[in-house]
Amino acid sequence: MADASFVLASAMKNIAAEVDQQFDALLEIPDDPRADLYRAMRHAAIGGGKRLRPLLVHATAALYGVKPEQSLRVGTAIECIHVYSLIHDDLPAMDDDDMRRGKPTVHREFDEATAVLAGDCLHALAFEILAHEATHRDSHVRAELVFELARAAGPAGMAGGQMMDLKAEGATFDLPTVTRLQAMKTGALISCSVESGAILGRIPPEARTGIRGYAHDIGLAFQIADDIIDVEGNEELAGKKLRKDGDAGKETFLSLLGLERAREQAKMLVEQAIEHLRDFGDEADLLRDIARFTLARNH
Amino acid sequence: MADASFVLASAMKNIAAEVDQQFDALLEIPDDPRADLYRAMRHAAIGGGKRLRPLLVHATAALYGVKPEQSLRVGTAIECIHVYSLIHDDLPAMDDDDMRRGKPTVHREFDEATAVLAGDCLHALAFEILAHEATHRDSHVRAELVFELARAAGPAGMAGGQMMDLKAEGATFDLPTVTRLQAMKTGALISCSVESGAILGRIPPEARTGIRGYAHDIGLAFQIADDIIDVEGNEELAGKKLRKDGDAGKETFLSLLGLERAREQAKMLVEQAIEHLRDFGDEADLLRDIARFTLARNH
Repeated sequence: MADASFVLASAMKNIAAEVDQQFDALLEIPDDPRADLYRAMRHAAIGGGKRLRPLLVHATAALYGVKPEQSLRVGTAIECIHVYSLIHDDLPAMDDDDMRRGKPTVHREFDEATAVLAGDCLHALAFEILAHEATHRDSHVRAELVFELARAAGPAGMAGGQMMDLKAEGATFDLPTVTRLQAMKTGALISCSVESGAILGRIPPEARTGIRGYAHDIGLAFQIADDIIDVEGNEELAGKKLRKDGDAGKETFLSLLGLERAREQAKMLVEQAIEHLRDFGDEADLLRDIARFTLARNH
Repeated sequence: MADASFVLASAMKNIAAEVDQQFDALLEIPDDPRADLYRAMRHAAIGGGKRLRPLLVHATAALYGVKPEQSLRVGTAIECIHVYSLIHDDLPAMDDDDMRRGKPTVHREFDEATAVLAGDCLHALAFEILAHEATHRDSHVRAELVFELARAAGPAGMAGGQMMDLKAEGATFDLPTVTRLQAMKTGALISCSVESGAILGRIPPEARTGIRGYAHDIGLAFQIADDIIDVEGNEELAGKKLRKDGDAGKETFLSLLGLERAREQAKMLVEQAIEHLRDFGDEADLLRDIARFTLARNH
């Protein structure tokens, strides 16, 4: 965490602990034949990850004076979607990964059937959390949150991007196609996190232009940084297998732009993201720190 | 369809055509690398199944004067969940089925990765449909529909029941455990369909006792009938492999009760379901016909 500012580092630490707490309470292991299902969800959901999405909900919602417990619930719901997607992406039929966040993947620790179902359960839980009255007393806010997350998770968002990624193997995607793929695969959920902060703050869509631009730019910068870490990173630090895209012959930002131009592009995106926040004062410093962190991180 | 009353037969035919139309419009194949993902969703979602869940939403909502286009949207959303669960249940790591509704299963027609993602996409689509303003202008109704469906689909409902079912292999579940398993695995979504009709009709929870009892009873009757079809049925008519539970050594209503008592039990449940509708007049005749049909059907 030497890369993160002190404010960011402490915000990340707090959010990580709070999200863990939420999952711990949500996923109490029942004394019946579903115990392994809950163990599998806990294995994937608790104690790992940067919790970037809950952090983004928190930091954006804080701009508008939203209660922290509300942004935490929404952040946890979005993290449910993120975690389910990791479980399913790691399956043998998909990316076939054995390690994730420094631990065996769910299908390795349990089995494939349990991994499929644990992912499906976290998927449903996300919407149960959002639709619950505790998330916001205004049902319009809850319905809007559900709509945003469902779109971001589905065929026009994350899952659609994952399908494009599967087809990338052996194909020769050009830069606009790779950009679109990544905007869907990882960008949609990052944008949804920021958008959800604004929804919680009851900010009308026409007043969300700045933070939408911010989310779009850090989403791409985050992915370029991921591509760089995939090539230059340390597997132990990353907690997962690296250098898989090159082995699979997939085009990435790095393969298309080269290391130097990819780095410049990411730096430019971070500056542009920060520029999108120009109308905000120091209440947006956490968002600015997050933008810088997308690039400075080493895993 | 010789078993169904004329009114029921024509309602089933109409609903089936309308649900197909909804899926056809929702799942237009894009001209990009996601085309197979949409083809896979269409393969699973269009042109098959009894559409029992959309029919139940329709028949319950009609009791309360809900507009047919609203119950159709909600029925389609619930059918998205049902179809996604069939795709995932058929996977090699789960029930490993090659045929479904008389066609190859999604992972056989496409591949496993596409099947996982097609299921995930239909899962997300369900909530996108419910949260959309077109489903109901009152956001409170939309949020309530999302909450009910998410609970019915997740670890306390369908997916939890599926996990119990996986553990049933080789275990010796008793009748209460099998009843609970089935109430979760198939009952939760059937109950949710009926409950959603009442939510659309803005019927307060305390006035839903009758239709809740109805839903509970037909859910169990439906499952007992399924167990009987699994043993006595015709594979061609069923469009899928039968007699798998016995081969896998799973306890079912049939193995625990024997054929005669299972039949009696199902008949009793259907009568009880109809009795739960005693406060309604002939506006509930379609629901009564559906109750009788759960047992009379041959596939």
